Amino acid sequence: MINKVQTTWKGNMQFESTNPGGNLMIDANEEVGGQDNGHRPKALMLSSLAGCSGLDVASLLKKMRAEVDEFTIDVEANLTDEHPKFYDKVKVIYNFYGSEFKKDKIEKSVKLSVERYCGVMEMFRKFAKVTIEIQYFEK
Amino acid sequence: MINKVQTTWKGNMQFESTNPGGNLMIDANEEVGGQDNGHRPKALMLSSLAGCSGLDVASLLKKMRAEVDEFTIDVEANLTDEHPKFYDKVKVIYNFYGSEFKKDKIEKSVKLSVERYCGVMEMFRKFAKVTIEIQYFEK
Repeated sequence: MINKVQTTWKGNMQFESTNPGGNLMIDANEEVGGQDNGHRPKALMLSSLAGCSGLDVASLLKKMRAEVDEFTIDVEANLTDEHPKFYDKVKVIYNFYGSEFKKDKIEKSVKLSVERYCGVMEMFRKFAKVTIEIQYFEK
Repeated sequence: MINKVQTTWKGNMQFESTNPGGNLMIDANEEVGGQDNGHRPKALMLSSLAGCSGLDVASLLKKMRAEVDEFTIDVEANLTDEHPKFYDKVKVIYNFYGSEFKKDKIEKSVKLSVERYCGVMEMFRKFAKVTIEIQYFEK
């Protein structure tokens, strides 16, 4: 299947990019000549990773009847110093909030996403060392 | 430098993700249980690629005094059929609109972004075959 996205220059350092879920704006910060009226493109990669895996986990927790009250995914990525700057080490931390966690099913959900379903995770493994953590917060 | 993004489950298949340029919503389409109230995470990778290179090109065209009236970047990416589904072939098409193009400088700008500056392009090369095209449209 072919995915297509069109990105249009809106003047200065701003761009508008299409997405099946609605357009989004991209802009640089003021230090490099932008006006901060849009998202930073490199950080979008990290939202893409968390969103891709998050969708898997939300879906799997429901299927396995292992729902939690809340969950967040933190992505911490090391950007190299020299051009072209890329993410060489990426930590993905799954934080689950609730009580009476079904930890075996929660861990299975994360593992299935990381190892089998999440295509963005697969792409990240090709350029970065990816590490995974799971944390529980009893409420 | 460490880049951090936090992504929070908002119920069902929706997530809110932080970005230095403002938060963004992520959601799945209705066919897979979402409500279409947010961007698709995988397509965000393509916006990230176009935005990263677009920022380079906008900046370089200005520095080289080779401005154009408008430009767009089309990204066409082939998604593999089997899980984990990833982009294995990616075409990036730079479309320049205007008149009296300084084609040598425009091509130099694109080349500098593709080969030297754009970190997202560097990451894409690790998992996909990336091809580049430049098109001119006289106004």
